[in-house]
Amino acid sequence: MTFNIIRSARAVLHVKDLDASRTFYEALGFVETESDDEHIYYRGLEEHNHHSLLLKKGDEASVEVISYKVMSEADLDQLASLFDRKGYKVKWVEAGAQKAIGRSFRVQDVSGIPVEFFSKMDTVDRMLQRYDQYRGARVQRIDHFNCMVSDVQKAYDFYTEELGFKCSEYTSSDDEAIWAAWLHRKPSVHDVAFMNGDGPRLHHIGFWLSDQLSLIHACDVLASMGYVDSIERGPGRHGLSNAFFLYLRDPDGHRIELYNGDYLTSDPDFKPIRWDINDPMRQTFWGHEAPDRWFNEASLVQNVYTGKTLPLQEPTLKKKKPTFII
Amino acid sequence: MTFNIIRSARAVLHVKDLDASRTFYEALGFVETESDDEHIYYRGLEEHNHHSLLLKKGDEASVEVISYKVMSEADLDQLASLFDRKGYKVKWVEAGAQKAIGRSFRVQDVSGIPVEFFSKMDTVDRMLQRYDQYRGARVQRIDHFNCMVSDVQKAYDFYTEELGFKCSEYTSSDDEAIWAAWLHRKPSVHDVAFMNGDGPRLHHIGFWLSDQLSLIHACDVLASMGYVDSIERGPGRHGLSNAFFLYLRDPDGHRIELYNGDYLTSDPDFKPIRWDINDPMRQTFWGHEAPDRWFNEASLVQNVYTGKTLPLQEPTLKKKKPTFII
Amino acid sequence: MTFNIIRSARAVLHVKDLDASRTFYEALGFVETESDDEHIYYRGLEEHNHHSLLLKKGDEASVEVISYKVMSEADLDQLASLFDRKGYKVKWVEAGAQKAIGRSFRVQDVSGIPVEFFSKMDTVDRMLQRYDQYRGARVQRIDHFNCMVSDVQKAYDFYTEELGFKCSEYTSSDDEAIWAAWLHRKPSVHDVAFMNGDGPRLHHIGFWLSDQLSLIHACDVLASMGYVDSIERGPGRHGLSNAFFLYLRDPDGHRIELYNGDYLTSDPDFKPIRWDINDPMRQTFWGHEAPDRWFNEASLVQNVYTGKTLPLQEPTLKKKKPTFII
Amino acid sequence: MTFNIIRSARAVLHVKDLDASRTFYEALGFVETESDDEHIYYRGLEEHNHHSLLLKKGDEASVEVISYKVMSEADLDQLASLFDRKGYKVKWVEAGAQKAIGRSFRVQDVSGIPVEFFSKMDTVDRMLQRYDQYRGARVQRIDHFNCMVSDVQKAYDFYTEELGFKCSEYTSSDDEAIWAAWLHRKPSVHDVAFMNGDGPRLHHIGFWLSDQLSLIHACDVLASMGYVDSIERGPGRHGLSNAFFLYLRDPDGHRIELYNGDYLTSDPDFKPIRWDINDPMRQTFWGHEAPDRWFNEASLVQNVYTGKTLPLQEPTLKKKKPTFII
Repeated sequence: MTFNIIRSARAVLHVKDLDASRTFYEALGFVETESDDEHIYYRGLEEHNHHSLLLKKGDEASVEVISYKVMSEADLDQLASLFDRKGYKVKWVEAGAQKAIGRSFRVQDVSGIPVEFFSKMDTVDRMLQRYDQYRGARVQRIDHFNCMVSDVQKAYDFYTEELGFKCSEYTSSDDEAIWAAWLHRKPSVHDVAFMNGDGPRLHHIGFWLSDQLSLIHACDVLASMGYVDSIERGPGRHGLSNAFFLYLRDPDGHRIELYNGDYLTSDPDFKPIRWDINDPMRQTFWGHEAPDRWFNEASLVQNVYTGKTLPLQEPTLKKKKPTFII
Repeated sequence: MTFNIIRSARAVLHVKDLDASRTFYEALGFVETESDDEHIYYRGLEEHNHHSLLLKKGDEASVEVISYKVMSEADLDQLASLFDRKGYKVKWVEAGAQKAIGRSFRVQDVSGIPVEFFSKMDTVDRMLQRYDQYRGARVQRIDHFNCMVSDVQKAYDFYTEELGFKCSEYTSSDDEAIWAAWLHRKPSVHDVAFMNGDGPRLHHIGFWLSDQLSLIHACDVLASMGYVDSIERGPGRHGLSNAFFLYLRDPDGHRIELYNGDYLTSDPDFKPIRWDINDPMRQTFWGHEAPDRWFNEASLVQNVYTGKTLPLQEPTLKKKKPTFII
Repeated sequence: MTFNIIRSARAVLHVKDLDASRTFYEALGFVETESDDEHIYYRGLEEHNHHSLLLKKGDEASVEVISYKVMSEADLDQLASLFDRKGYKVKWVEAGAQKAIGRSFRVQDVSGIPVEFFSKMDTVDRMLQRYDQYRGARVQRIDHFNCMVSDVQKAYDFYTEELGFKCSEYTSSDDEAIWAAWLHRKPSVHDVAFMNGDGPRLHHIGFWLSDQLSLIHACDVLASMGYVDSIERGPGRHGLSNAFFLYLRDPDGHRIELYNGDYLTSDPDFKPIRWDINDPMRQTFWGHEAPDRWFNEASLVQNVYTGKTLPLQEPTLKKKKPTFII
Repeated sequence: MTFNIIRSARAVLHVKDLDASRTFYEALGFVETESDDEHIYYRGLEEHNHHSLLLKKGDEASVEVISYKVMSEADLDQLASLFDRKGYKVKWVEAGAQKAIGRSFRVQDVSGIPVEFFSKMDTVDRMLQRYDQYRGARVQRIDHFNCMVSDVQKAYDFYTEELGFKCSEYTSSDDEAIWAAWLHRKPSVHDVAFMNGDGPRLHHIGFWLSDQLSLIHACDVLASMGYVDSIERGPGRHGLSNAFFLYLRDPDGHRIELYNGDYLTSDPDFKPIRWDINDPMRQTFWGHEAPDRWFNEASLVQNVYTGKTLPLQEPTLKKKKPTFII
């Protein structure tokens, strides 16, 4: 590989009511870098880049794109070449066309997920030591994307063989079919996970917290503000990834995971951890069942050329409840 | 009133397999004061009395008695006189008949719950500053009993009017019928709660923890030991009482609540907090539903004279799922 | 005793700059009940009474009075009678003369500390479940006063024999002279402590927090706001009382303790814990030394009749550094 | 660069009494992989490699070597070539000569620190989800080394220019002389730090904890076991690195840092954070002073050929108390 994808970097979500979104995301402790009538740019407390979550006012809730940061402009070109050679239609977005971001390209990936790559984003002051401004869940940084796709094996192959991602953990059945996979570029559990299901959809965006109590406090804060329905699942512990988790639904139904835990996956002798599809502790170490809507609902994604949301395809593996699961 | 009940003090549970129980309660961090082939005496880390939980080997799982401590021997006599006058059959147990406890009396209370009163228990070394011996949930002390009874109003009246308990919080319907009530002698939320349901039964014994993370760690420890089925409900926040809670089922099905939170209820101008029976945040502030077995299952209690478990009576208030609830 | 003192209830401090004080106390998470040009009334998150800390604009930093709440108006009268009989000059303050408080009386206690007793204070909404408004240290409630006095034995005798306080822990030397004592009415470690030193002075007011991380966060918040010099001692663990503590100095030098820990002291068989004056773990369980200013500095107190600050008296026990210590 | 150093991987310490060491390190929650009369092999809870801390019985306390893991055997050869070319005497240790480790080479680095590189270490079961075995500080993994050297600039240049380390934070004076630097390979704050002082010495080994309360509990556990003198500094917050820290001295005086905090340093646009040598918040965000012994004492290191401890050299920058500081 002649390019280096550093990490998952930002998501661009369409929401119908920016004010409603702001109340929700502020409660979680996101830092608003800037905003206008059509956009809000959020980042976590430790982030020195301009934003990791961009909300755009839209007619319907959908995912415009999820973005990865690469090491350099040369890496960006090499990566675009790879997609070109493989027959993907690469759409370049020139520097200046998007606030705070250098030139980038977008492409519908092997599963139909709209992904973007860039190497430059404006830097801003970190708020890590501005403890007087900590609020709610004290969101630290973006951690990962979780995508529901109709063919996990295909996504797995492309991301590991072509894009250089490593697998930390995965779920498979007796026949070794892969039902879900956690893949990383930074040495954590993941930058992106793929789960078997009706796709392409974005299941959730994971944000990293520095501690468990901030996650519990997030529940208390949201409940006290009337957001009980937004608390979808958790707090709990995933067997897979060992994360202490909380799943929330924002006012448009986009799913946000608050996430604490993780471990270092830097070493080549780290062997991906296999979980059996029938092991109940995989999804919830403590044994709680996830609600149906956690399995069935996810955000529709856009065609990077038309901006239209993509239709869904049935998964290749037979769907059953505990299937496309963390 | 010429007597002073200090606090809820201990529970005596019958279990079928002491070894199985020991593995479970040790995992939670209970301190074993002593034991023999028929008994295990447990206490919490800050407790200076000999035990707050006594497990006795028995043929079936049941509750022998729940015990309250009174201020003095004179108080004990006065309290026995009250029960006598009211027509209750008081059963005295002389000093020496029970390990570590002075003379006591037992009685089937107004709801049929087997209760015991005593003023003296042997003291032992506190383990509060023996941090090297902290384990699991780091249980600090017994906090309260929760009893399912067929007539909450009757229990409420007897405990508040005759025994001197104060009400901190309660659940009622539009017609002001009391569905559940939290009553205290020590200035916390409760020493005992009564919930509407098939009774008399002991729904759970609550033990106080000093912090939220010990409760989360308890989930992790139990899960890693294979006790997933023992984790019944939580972690979560009760609206009522504001407790951060976890409900566990021991190997015999007795329910243990790990509990952190509480507030001071010492003042006469503290007004009992009313929760509407239809307010979902009452039982779970974050909106999670409790599983059916949390509502339907509870420990049978013994007749203090015969040792036989008592038959159940239908509740006076029409039972519906979120009825007899914290 | 024919009266019942419930608990330590509020402190009235004179400060020179209300705005400077507000910035500091808001950072700690106190709830401002109300204020005007001359006063700020603060309470903790769980408190249902109007205030537990009253700041008054004054020409110099001093303590006007520390107040205890009694059970009823009759108790108030009985208590006043006791002081009268013992030769103390009781100063009544009629209802309405102080905002939110019923009639009260003030007296210079046996050590010269200005104390006040009242039975009625206006009630307000508790903020316990308004998690969206939690800030900083999330102060929950007032817990205790710590007074530096020239004769601890005299204070100890009056408070235990005349006022009905119980001793939870104390520091003594080989000759059993009492150097410091922790006394309570509510069943916690203390409502008031007396330490040997130049007195009468108020060493600190202790506020209770629900958890350790709120205390650590308070350090981070204060440091990020430039209050490094306000962080005087801690975080640490006291051997005596087992409290996890942090000592702060407000803009006028008044010392505030943030306090988490405690244990239940309700039982008559609880034996006061003796610490030897030479045991270093008494003051700091982890072995850290307290800074000199923690020992030497404290707030001057007012004469309840003249409002003038009282001159200091040398302690009866020879002062040495680890002397008047928690 | 044609080699890839992954991360700091292990330290080999000589200690005089293995039993004394075992009591201490077990209290901290290290996992003992195996041991014999001359060695104890420890790892943290998430580590899948055989050990990250090797204690060897020796006649005096010293540091045999600190080790880094590289990506492959080819990387190892390339790295050895670099040292060769630069005139360093590389000492190879063949596979099998050290338990659990493949072939490695050792060299006295530019500052005289004995360093080792290897690419292979046996793997063992991770204990990350064996929560029932968590104890004490719940040490998760090795994080970094901190070395005191006589010429920080020289160390900085070699590690950044020749070995490919990146700088996350550094301390400098007005003339831009570097007094201390934090350098990383994994995308955290550091794998190694260099501080100005009498060197070469190992100041401490940092181990990562997953949360702040485990660090506080470590203080309580150590104090309850009589290790008060082992608690040297903290808990506190470093301004530099933002770490929540605790410094301990093991029975031989080796310094261990328990460390929680950190942030992601993966991006090329992350600009190293400069701290002024005179900024007191650099070393302790909350303003506490470190004790003199924290500045003056550190572990002597061995000559990799002779096993003798190396003599110390005066630092090039004038030493003053807050000089060689985190």
